Parts: sequence; structure tokens; C-alpha cells
Amino acid sequence: MKPLAGIRVIDLTQAYSGPFCTMHLADFGADVIKIERPGVGDQSRTWGPMKNDYSAYYAFLNRNKKSITLDLGSQAGKEILLKLVRDSDVICENFRVGTMEKLGVGYEEIQKVNPEIIYASISGFGLEGPLSKLPAYDIVAQAMSGIMSITGFPDNLPTKVGPSIGDNYTGTYLALGICMALYHRKQTGKGQRLDVAMVDTLFSILENAVVEYTVAGNIPIRSGNADPGIAPFDSFEVKDGTAVMGVGTNAMWKKLCELMGRPELINDPRYNTNDNRCKNYMPDLKSIVEDYTRTKTKVELEQIMNEAGIPFGQILNVAEAADHPQLKSREMLVEVDDPALGKIKIPGIPIKMHDTPGEVRKAASLLGQDTDEILSSLGLSNEKIKLLHEQGFV
Amino acid sequence: MKPLAGIRVIDLTQAYSGPFCTMHLADFGADVIKIERPGVGDQSRTWGPMKNDYSAYYAFLNRNKKSITLDLGSQAGKEILLKLVRDSDVICENFRVGTMEKLGVGYEEIQKVNPEIIYASISGFGLEGPLSKLPAYDIVAQAMSGIMSITGFPDNLPTKVGPSIGDNYTGTYLALGICMALYHRKQTGKGQRLDVAMVDTLFSILENAVVEYTVAGNIPIRSGNADPGIAPFDSFEVKDGTAVMGVGTNAMWKKLCELMGRPELINDPRYNTNDNRCKNYMPDLKSIVEDYTRTKTKVELEQIMNEAGIPFGQILNVAEAADHPQLKSREMLVEVDDPALGKIKIPGIPIKMHDTPGEVRKAASLLGQDTDEILSSLGLSNEKIKLLHEQGFV
Repeated sequence: MKPLAGIRVIDLTQAYSGPFCTMHLADFGADVIKIERPGVGDQSRTWGPMKNDYSAYYAFLNRNKKSITLDLGSQAGKEILLKLVRDSDVICENFRVGTMEKLGVGYEEIQKVNPEIIYASISGFGLEGPLSKLPAYDIVAQAMSGIMSITGFPDNLPTKVGPSIGDNYTGTYLALGICMALYHRKQTGKGQRLDVAMVDTLFSILENAVVEYTVAGNIPIRSGNADPGIAPFDSFEVKDGTAVMGVGTNAMWKKLCELMGRPELINDPRYNTNDNRCKNYMPDLKSIVEDYTRTKTKVELEQIMNEAGIPFGQILNVAEAADHPQLKSREMLVEVDDPALGKIKIPGIPIKMHDTPGEVRKAASLLGQDTDEILSSLGLSNEKIKLLHEQGFV
Repeated sequence: MKPLAGIRVIDLTQAYSGPFCTMHLADFGADVIKIERPGVGDQSRTWGPMKNDYSAYYAFLNRNKKSITLDLGSQAGKEILLKLVRDSDVICENFRVGTMEKLGVGYEEIQKVNPEIIYASISGFGLEGPLSKLPAYDIVAQAMSGIMSITGFPDNLPTKVGPSIGDNYTGTYLALGICMALYHRKQTGKGQRLDVAMVDTLFSILENAVVEYTVAGNIPIRSGNADPGIAPFDSFEVKDGTAVMGVGTNAMWKKLCELMGRPELINDPRYNTNDNRCKNYMPDLKSIVEDYTRTKTKVELEQIMNEAGIPFGQILNVAEAADHPQLKSREMLVEVDDPALGKIKIPGIPIKMHDTPGEVRKAASLLGQDTDEILSSLGLSNEKIKLLHEQGFV
């Protein structure tokens, strides 16, 4: 039995943030019914990579979910939505703030048909505040949260995190909020409204950068791959490229000096404490370390450092990471037989629940693949369903 | 009533990943008892920024938690831990894999005293697989997950995300797993083991980069701040610095051309579709856009783009983000009266539960501040507690 078995989620989200949230819920057993625009569907159905004219982007994010098409602008569509909501536990949406109310399915309307509903929203800036009504993409949230200002190299531009973490992290926070709300409802019988915002999310993960400003009065700057408070803790040139290493303790420093054949550095007053190593890191200490690392390949260094107990990593590209024996043993790629794309490999499930593991039990649905089945389950006759199709409402 | 009220968490974690997990739980009402080494405490108690010799890093992460010191290497310390576990719901740890077993408090031992416990672990690589026993820091997880290979500029090095997202995201995933496990336990009475790994976590948030490899056969590369699939969608030079803008639809493109005073570009065959704009983005289209954006300041452009409905953002530094009226209205900084640091501002709570909001209700504890109170609650006499202090076990 999956932990969220029996929970039904009405999923009005599209693109990345909301679907990432409901993917977590679906992976752990929730029955997620994704509602899409007739004939068009989630905008991510057109996002690459494409194969056979179908989107692998959509496919990996929407596994384990059902797809029903509904025209929410029509009275018929809205009525079906409200019928679905009546027997559901959660409704998720990531429209621009105010859109649900305009459609006539805001929190008040939804609560009327299901007072115990958990109504969960994602937006760029949140439900209130001067910017709440503005549209935002991930790149805007990354820029305004401060995370770009502390990512990248000091002599280059503020740098966006490659993948859209404003989207995916906000989706994960919403999933966490939903699970807490489900637990609370189990105890009290009460549903509630939740919301998370992309800018808030990214601001909440700036680590000590926030207290660096509010407590120490400093404005944190970019430091490339180097840790500003530990040294040597950075990326380093090696014989065949670049790798990372973190010398986090004095014991590791001693070990590294021995490996480098430079035991005299262990107690050198420039390097004998972490503080001193930080002060004298650039350019001297970094050069000393690279004089050594440039004599070895990544693979040689990996073996040496693993044996020495010094955290070290090759900088893998996505193919190397995907094919790595460690990620394989953790089942971080799973195969799914997609109705449009055929057998494909998609990212697996990072949360390992040992007794109730998550599972990719079905591929993403084609647009509206489950419409008729779901409408039938609501008691609609075949004639009525046929009519709805003809009218373009489903 | 907070959603996790009544849940007791025994928190053996230190540094960033585990404490970030238990911070979420504590913010929403769980009673988190943090166990620290007598006389030393969590290593993050020495991490900057420091003020009055106390760590603001520790302070923001460990608000809402209690601190008890326990020497887990001693029989007395272990016995107290097991007593605490008996009446708890969750135990969290982020030691190197195998350490809990060596201490004699592995899952089997813990289950013996509390069969319904939820036992939750964070590690660099996970509990199984060839690398499971290796130590890992955030930078190693970032390198090996592939995320560094797709962050940064193509003519520069693979780039680490500034804050340690290998730590914080893994902590958030564990919190999500714990809440699902609590929900499952409420239904079935059964606890279980959970684990999450930093490398798995970061691999799971690479967005479409994974299917780009597994489905399309491409190895994704760094593209700086530009979106590889949408254009213009990037950072741009403006009169007084750099800002970001995302032109995500043809309607926005039309609007932008009008704003730039270049209506002839709307249907220009080089730019009339998103595909064509991507193909001709570098260097031509980017130059055209910057010819315009360089004539305006960030503030001017923000106003223009907000009115036009084109997502736009200033690249804020951490101070500007912290002081932004939008983040203020979302209470993303909260004041806490810390026993060591005085009144300080720390990051607020990004998950907004409207009926059962999270709350920063107490500051982080001094090392061992709650030891005596907790030992008393276990029925230990004052004499016994005094003796344990003298023996250095607490």
C-alpha cells in the first residue's frame, strides 16, 4: 500500500512547478487527475525533447497521472470540475493569481462543494503583496530572490542555476505543505488553503547568505566554485579536466599535504588552520593544490581521495551521471512504456520509503486519454459524453 | 493548532541538510529535540557569520528546536537516547552511512524499543551502491549529479550553485518523506525506514536534461542565462547593469517589438516563431534586444515590462531581495530574540498554510540548554542528572 493511496488530487497545473508537485504525490500513490484544455493540453506537451511529435518533457513529469480534457471557460466544463472536486481531497493550480476566481472556481466556490478540500496554489510572487498579480518565469524568480547574485564567478555575470529550480523547488514545497495539510485534516477533519511562491522559495534556500546580511551586515558576493568559509574547497584543474574536492577538516588537510608530498605545509603558519587557509587561499594555496592535481587524472585522483577519506568528485555531465553505477544502484532512472514515445528512460524517485516505496506504475497519458472513463465514473451517460465531445467542452 | 503538533522528533543531524529537514518540521509544530555532543555541539555552531562568538548560521537553522547534549559513545548516553526514542515518532540522522550501526543505534536497535518509529536518514550517496560508504559534501554531490555541468556559461567552468542546494533540497525531500510516512502510519499504525541521498536529489531536479540524454541522445551543455528552447529569454545589459526577461509567447514577442519601436521584426522570417527566434538568437536577436534595453535603466524597464505583461526581473543582491517590499509582505524575514545573538532577522517560512501557519516561536537553544528539563521529564532524579554532567555524558 502506497502512503497516499486513496487520496484524489484534481490537478489544474501546467508547465513545470505544479506538475512536479503532483508528480511527487502520484509517485506515492495519490490518484492524480490532470485537467487539460481540449485540443491543446498542457503547454509542456510542446516542450522538447520531442520524439514522434510527442514531448519527453511532458512524459517524465506526468507519469502516474490521468488526463482529462475540460473547457473551464464553459458552464459544462465548470460543472464537471465541481463534480470531480466534490469527491476529491486536494486541488492544485498554478495559474496567474486571480485566474481561478475569474473562472469562477476560486477557493470560496470550491469550498462550497467540498468544505474539507485542500486548495493548493503556486505563483511567482505569492497571493498578496505589490507584485502578486505579475506573471513570473523561473528566470525572474531566480533573479529577484538573490540566488543569481551568489551563483557564478566574481568576474562574470550573476548566473542562473541551469535547471529551473524556482519551479521544481516550489513544487516540492507545495507537496510538503499538502502532506502536512492531509495529516492535519486526518486529525481534525479540516481542509485549508495553501500557497507557495517561487521568489519566497528561492529566498528560503540561500543558506547563510541571508544572515550574512541581516546579522553581519555584509552583502554576499559570488565566489565561483570556492567555498568562502572553508579551504581548499573548490574545483581544481586536473590532468584531464576539472574536478572538485572539499578539505573540510584539519585531519583532511594533513592527509592532503602528505599525498601532495608537501608535509612541511601541514604546520606552515599560512595554512595550519582553516582560517589561515582561507586567508591565503588565492592565489597561493590554490596553485599549490593544482600543482599536484594537474599531475593526476580524475580517475586516479578519485581513487586516491576515496582511500584517503577526502570528499572528491568528478564533474560529471548528464550522460555520465545517468549511467553512473551509484545512480543505477539507486534506480534513479526507470523505464516506462509510453503510449506515444515507446520505451523510454525517465528520472526515478529520490525519496526512498523502504516499506511503501514510490513507483512509476504507468506512463503519462495522451491528451484526454482518460476523459471518458472519468466522466462515466461521475455517472454521465455515453450520449452525454458524446455530446460534450461534439461541443468541444471535453 | 499546528499541523505537526504532538509529533516528537529525535534529531541527531548536524551541519545543513538534516537540520534544514527538521527546521521544516519544527516550524510547523513538531517537538524537535536536537541531540548534540557534550561540550562541542553541532559543527555549524562554529560556522559564520559569527556575532558575540555565536553562530548566526546555527541560529537560523535551529530555531524552534530544543538542544540536549548526549555522549552517544557512552552507555549512559545511549540509554537516554533509547528512552527518548521510546516516546517519539521520528528519528533523523545524517551521519556517514554505517555510523548509527557502529554506535549501536541502527534501525534494528531503534525499532526494538519503538516498533512504530519513522527512521529517516540523509547521506551523500544513499544506503546502498558502490559509493554508499564514502563521505560527501554538497560540492561533491553537485559535481557528480550533473547539475554543475549545466550551470554556468559555455566558455567558462562548470559552475556550482551558490548556496548548498544538495544539502537543503535533500533535507526538504526527507521532510516530505517523513510527512508521507506519518500519514501512512496514521492509517496503518506502521512506521518505517526512509532515506534520501544528495546525489539522487540533485539528479532528480535536472528538469528535461535527463530525457534530453535518454530520449534524444544529446548531452546537455551550459547555456549561461539563456534558455536553450525559448528566445529571447535571458539576461540582458541595461543602462545601469544587467536584468532578466522572458519572452515566452508570440504575443509577448509582438509586444516587445512594439516597445522597441521595431514593428517590422514581428513577422520577420528570422524571428516570427519561437523556433526561428532560437535559431537566430545569437548574436543577432540578442544584440537587437540589448540595443533597446541599454537605453533604459532597470527601474524604467521593470515598469515598462510589468505594464506590458512581459516577465522581467532586476537581478537583486541578497540585501535588495531581503528588503524588497514583496518579500516583506510575505514575511520572508522574521525577527527572533536569540539568547546569544540578541534580536536578529532570519529567513521566514516559505510554505503558507492559511489556517495552520508555520511560526518561528522560539530562538535556537544554546548548547544543551534543554538537557536538564528533558532528562527530568524522563524521570531522572536531580542527583542522577548532576552525576551525568560530572561524568561528561551530557
